[in-house]
Amino acid sequence: MKIAVDAMGTDYGPRTVVEGAVLAVQSLGIEIVLVGDERSISRLLKAMRFKSPKLSIVHAGEVVSMKDAPAESLKKRGSSIAVAAQLVAHKEAAALVSAGNTGATVAATLTRWRKLPGIHRPAIATLLPTKKQPVVLLDVGANVDCKPIHLYQFALMGSVYVRHVLGRNNPRVGLLNIGSEEGKGDDLTLQTYPLLKSSSLNFAGNVEGRDILSGQFDVVVCDGFVGNALLKFGEGAAELILSSLKGELSKNVVTYLCAMAVKPAFKRFMKTVDYTEYGGAPLLGVNGVCIIGHGSSNPRAIMNAIRAAREAIEHHLNDHILERLAEPTPTFLEAST
Amino acid sequence: MKIAVDAMGTDYGPRTVVEGAVLAVQSLGIEIVLVGDERSISRLLKAMRFKSPKLSIVHAGEVVSMKDAPAESLKKRGSSIAVAAQLVAHKEAAALVSAGNTGATVAATLTRWRKLPGIHRPAIATLLPTKKQPVVLLDVGANVDCKPIHLYQFALMGSVYVRHVLGRNNPRVGLLNIGSEEGKGDDLTLQTYPLLKSSSLNFAGNVEGRDILSGQFDVVVCDGFVGNALLKFGEGAAELILSSLKGELSKNVVTYLCAMAVKPAFKRFMKTVDYTEYGGAPLLGVNGVCIIGHGSSNPRAIMNAIRAAREAIEHHLNDHILERLAEPTPTFLEAST
Repeated sequence: MKIAVDAMGTDYGPRTVVEGAVLAVQSLGIEIVLVGDERSISRLLKAMRFKSPKLSIVHAGEVVSMKDAPAESLKKRGSSIAVAAQLVAHKEAAALVSAGNTGATVAATLTRWRKLPGIHRPAIATLLPTKKQPVVLLDVGANVDCKPIHLYQFALMGSVYVRHVLGRNNPRVGLLNIGSEEGKGDDLTLQTYPLLKSSSLNFAGNVEGRDILSGQFDVVVCDGFVGNALLKFGEGAAELILSSLKGELSKNVVTYLCAMAVKPAFKRFMKTVDYTEYGGAPLLGVNGVCIIGHGSSNPRAIMNAIRAAREAIEHHLNDHILERLAEPTPTFLEAST
Repeated sequence: MKIAVDAMGTDYGPRTVVEGAVLAVQSLGIEIVLVGDERSISRLLKAMRFKSPKLSIVHAGEVVSMKDAPAESLKKRGSSIAVAAQLVAHKEAAALVSAGNTGATVAATLTRWRKLPGIHRPAIATLLPTKKQPVVLLDVGANVDCKPIHLYQFALMGSVYVRHVLGRNNPRVGLLNIGSEEGKGDDLTLQTYPLLKSSSLNFAGNVEGRDILSGQFDVVVCDGFVGNALLKFGEGAAELILSSLKGELSKNVVTYLCAMAVKPAFKRFMKTVDYTEYGGAPLLGVNGVCIIGHGSSNPRAIMNAIRAAREAIEHHLNDHILERLAEPTPTFLEAST
């Protein structure tokens, strides 16, 4: 099993990705194809004095920038992301990992792999820390203006991911809403509630924003606009809290010294909320395995995204999604497509 | 100027509200009518040995619970929220403050006061801390399934609030979106962008969730479903971060003692992110002044919500909104109503 890694993604250029790939080869023994500018990649590997039969390079002359719109990105047929997706389409690699332009990654996989038969729209799922075990939130940006059938399928795919990749039985599914009672919501959630309720999924009802991180749910579904706004707001809020706290603690020598003493505890804590620990976000519903890394990934995050790709392959994620899709579903689902 | 305060709101019963009202009389010299169960209120005031000609009670025999749907709440014509709204409608009070059921408060004011002429939908605006000065985010829950004209009017009302109540010139308005570039978004934001761009407001473009708290914007507008989910998620995330950090610091004696030493710095920091410092959330667009408090308000938060009500009255908030509404607007606004 070989994993194709887009070497030109991330906000910081290929160094981080190459270092992450080397980590993955060294510590996880995974076979990797780095896709991107061959000269840059070779130079980086040489500087690291790293050589392994498990690490190969496939050249791609173009780069999709973080600013390129999905339509523009598709015109760059020689881009690292396009070439990497092509390798998977031709079965020369078993999965794709990219920490580049998310819209471009979704577009490249959709064009070259298509969707899983029966899936209306793919979704980006992200793992968030909670007081207990991580929760899977989806969609966080692949789709806006979702319909009830999309949210239902997100719930199905998220449940399969939690069950078969994370190994938790009977995952509890929540519908993100503005109130916990049935009958609350906007048009979309009001129509989605009965779909989920009558499905064979373990639907646990509405979940308010505050309770996503409570640990009471394994999967939370929402429209991609909402999920994306929410996720980024959470990042902004966490950043503000930690930087303000740091500022306060540096104000005098005593608190500064104390802050130094508590640093290890602080670091342990940061690890529990650090997205790099969770690897990337699986793109669910495409006909192949794709893990999307954060644009500001460090090498450790890249390695964990590669690990997540291996796990999705080893646990036959897409086969299980197809099996679940084949189960009889409420007939009125047809009406809401 | 007298302010009507719903004594039966908050998650903890009338004690908090009564204590907050007493604080407001004592430290701000504001005249207050407490509306709710007369016996309970009198008993609490007696226990506090507080008596002042500035504090009166108006009895209301019913209570709207936090679980009542807006339609149900309207049936309780004798509820504290209904009676308090009625006092304002009859000019016996100049504003309403409630930390009770938000939907019921919106319904009570809309029914008894109506909207400001020209306003399509009211919005709940909330103040959030940033690295610089607080940002006003709206709508955070009064309306779901918004149309572009609603978001435009939210931006207008938010700008007036920042200009006339918070005293900042030429407030910068951002449109919450899933990308910062023009051309990103869902149907709603794609249609709202040109409206805001061609308006006389100081429109600064799209803002991603991460940047709401950056301090670069004075007003950020979004659909009420999105704003509500986001706000509650932010609360949940902040809670998780702080409780995990606390847990880490209590793990051994050294870090625990150090944590004690940094406690004052920690408290100062908490104050910067503490919603109680900002008082309540103004309900903008109704024909009267209404401040909605957080259900878990403490007395200090209640006092600050009362202060916010006084400021809105003193700065003639609604007159300024009406003035701004009377200004010529882009003609194609008509098309999107």
